[in-house]
Amino acid sequence: MLPFNLTILGSSSATPTSERNPTAQLLCHSEKLFLIDCGEGTQVSLRRMHIHFQRIRHIFISHLHGDHFYGLIGLISSMHLLGRNKPLHIYGPPMLKQILDLQLDASLTTLIYPLEFHPTQADKQEVLFEDEEITVSSFPMLHRIPNTGFLFREKPYERKIRKDIISILGIPVHLIPKIKAGADFIAADGTIHPNQTITTEPPQPRMYAFCSDTAYFENIIPIVQCADLLYHETTFMNDRIVNAAEKFHSTTGQAATIALKANVKKLLIGHYSARYDNLQPLLDEARAVFTETELAVDGKVFEI
Amino acid sequence: MLPFNLTILGSSSATPTSERNPTAQLLCHSEKLFLIDCGEGTQVSLRRMHIHFQRIRHIFISHLHGDHFYGLIGLISSMHLLGRNKPLHIYGPPMLKQILDLQLDASLTTLIYPLEFHPTQADKQEVLFEDEEITVSSFPMLHRIPNTGFLFREKPYERKIRKDIISILGIPVHLIPKIKAGADFIAADGTIHPNQTITTEPPQPRMYAFCSDTAYFENIIPIVQCADLLYHETTFMNDRIVNAAEKFHSTTGQAATIALKANVKKLLIGHYSARYDNLQPLLDEARAVFTETELAVDGKVFEI
Repeated sequence: MLPFNLTILGSSSATPTSERNPTAQLLCHSEKLFLIDCGEGTQVSLRRMHIHFQRIRHIFISHLHGDHFYGLIGLISSMHLLGRNKPLHIYGPPMLKQILDLQLDASLTTLIYPLEFHPTQADKQEVLFEDEEITVSSFPMLHRIPNTGFLFREKPYERKIRKDIISILGIPVHLIPKIKAGADFIAADGTIHPNQTITTEPPQPRMYAFCSDTAYFENIIPIVQCADLLYHETTFMNDRIVNAAEKFHSTTGQAATIALKANVKKLLIGHYSARYDNLQPLLDEARAVFTETELAVDGKVFEI
Repeated sequence: MLPFNLTILGSSSATPTSERNPTAQLLCHSEKLFLIDCGEGTQVSLRRMHIHFQRIRHIFISHLHGDHFYGLIGLISSMHLLGRNKPLHIYGPPMLKQILDLQLDASLTTLIYPLEFHPTQADKQEVLFEDEEITVSSFPMLHRIPNTGFLFREKPYERKIRKDIISILGIPVHLIPKIKAGADFIAADGTIHPNQTITTEPPQPRMYAFCSDTAYFENIIPIVQCADLLYHETTFMNDRIVNAAEKFHSTTGQAATIALKANVKKLLIGHYSARYDNLQPLLDEARAVFTETELAVDGKVFEI
């Protein structure tokens, strides 16, 4: 299986605190680094964690509340000043491009690397990126302004041929890709070796679902169904359910209910209001509904 | 004398490092807090230093290179989210207003406090703010884009009446303001008590000069003449004098030469290139020209 893990760079909502940065997550899959949201201070968090940020090729911005993108222009600028030449792809609401362009214009900066902007649409699901290993798509959330979640889904793995079988049966090298894709092997004497007898089951493809700021929204359940890891915001505890609804945010209980109904393997909560110093009560409330819950904490890494 | 001190919130140039934030300084005079430049991460630095940032009423932005203002929109937003109601005055290049407005529009935010924007002009000196205690003015720097320095000059202090004299001579209370302003006292018997015999010299008004990014620029010398504290950028050491000129920045030797020619009391250097981990060599080079030099270091406070 390919490496697949998530590093929390920021877990605070709205305003940063001394301990928690605003939302930003780094998703590593195979050799690729994807950045999800980019609150103020993200570039410093990346440095402090010794993550070489020029390796990031794709940045996904969920929506244009400042705690999700105010660190982006600084990161883009630092990539420029530090001599980047590889393209950077940014996926976000259309107006984000205007905001970046205006700030680059103000400093008379022409980036020395290609910045490819891909506008997202918040009213439907769409595939934003795919290669041989992974597909990234967006889906609508329910928030005060247009906002998307992001789904990172591994492509199916190929079946594996048992190595001993290759020499025993004398399977020619050029047939191996076909067999990995599911073909049977017909030996020189006409004997058919069914694929299942010469290959082993591949690992199940994994899925990470990032659900940015949202009110309780059951429409996402079929989309994030059976995710290996679901991140869902929990700005408030259950006693502030009315406050949460007014602000189009979710409570611990609501996040855990989504996780339960979507039958995910693990739930990660975050985007905590600055009012909560101690996060244990939030974890307890969520676990009361969905046991396999973890807290997003700045600097923590989760294997997917 | 009124309290007058400077807190360094950021001392890095261009890109932040793990140890140094981009430019930001907090100037405290009497009860007033002035913020000078606002690089990314400034709001978190203020929090970590337990400075109540809602007390800041005036923010001065020198120019629109990102390392001097990318933290501003986040600070403005946090002031809003935390319930500010007092006006905030921002002084900076005209285009800064567009940048702030666009980002507030994108999040459909209407600030709950008055934000008064005062465009600065980079081609001349102008008074930006004054009250009974202090005058803040701007002056042109020599940089790749329009850029101003800022001068914080105390108003002259009143003379002090010797307390013993008030009772000895029976000076009526209503005359005290006039005597503090320099009037003589004429006693009931007609005796003239010259002002100098009944008052003491007031403290000298102090001056802080902030010279943001600039090439070596002798035009500023008469403006910052005799400052109690002069902050002057030193992006590079002397061996990179050509590099500095190309980028419209200064070296340690150039900053110290300005300090020497302007006969200031103390020089503060900062805006160090990220290439310098150890700042001692920069300090040594500057002190070789101007002994009374100090290093700007994040978190350090300088009395003026």
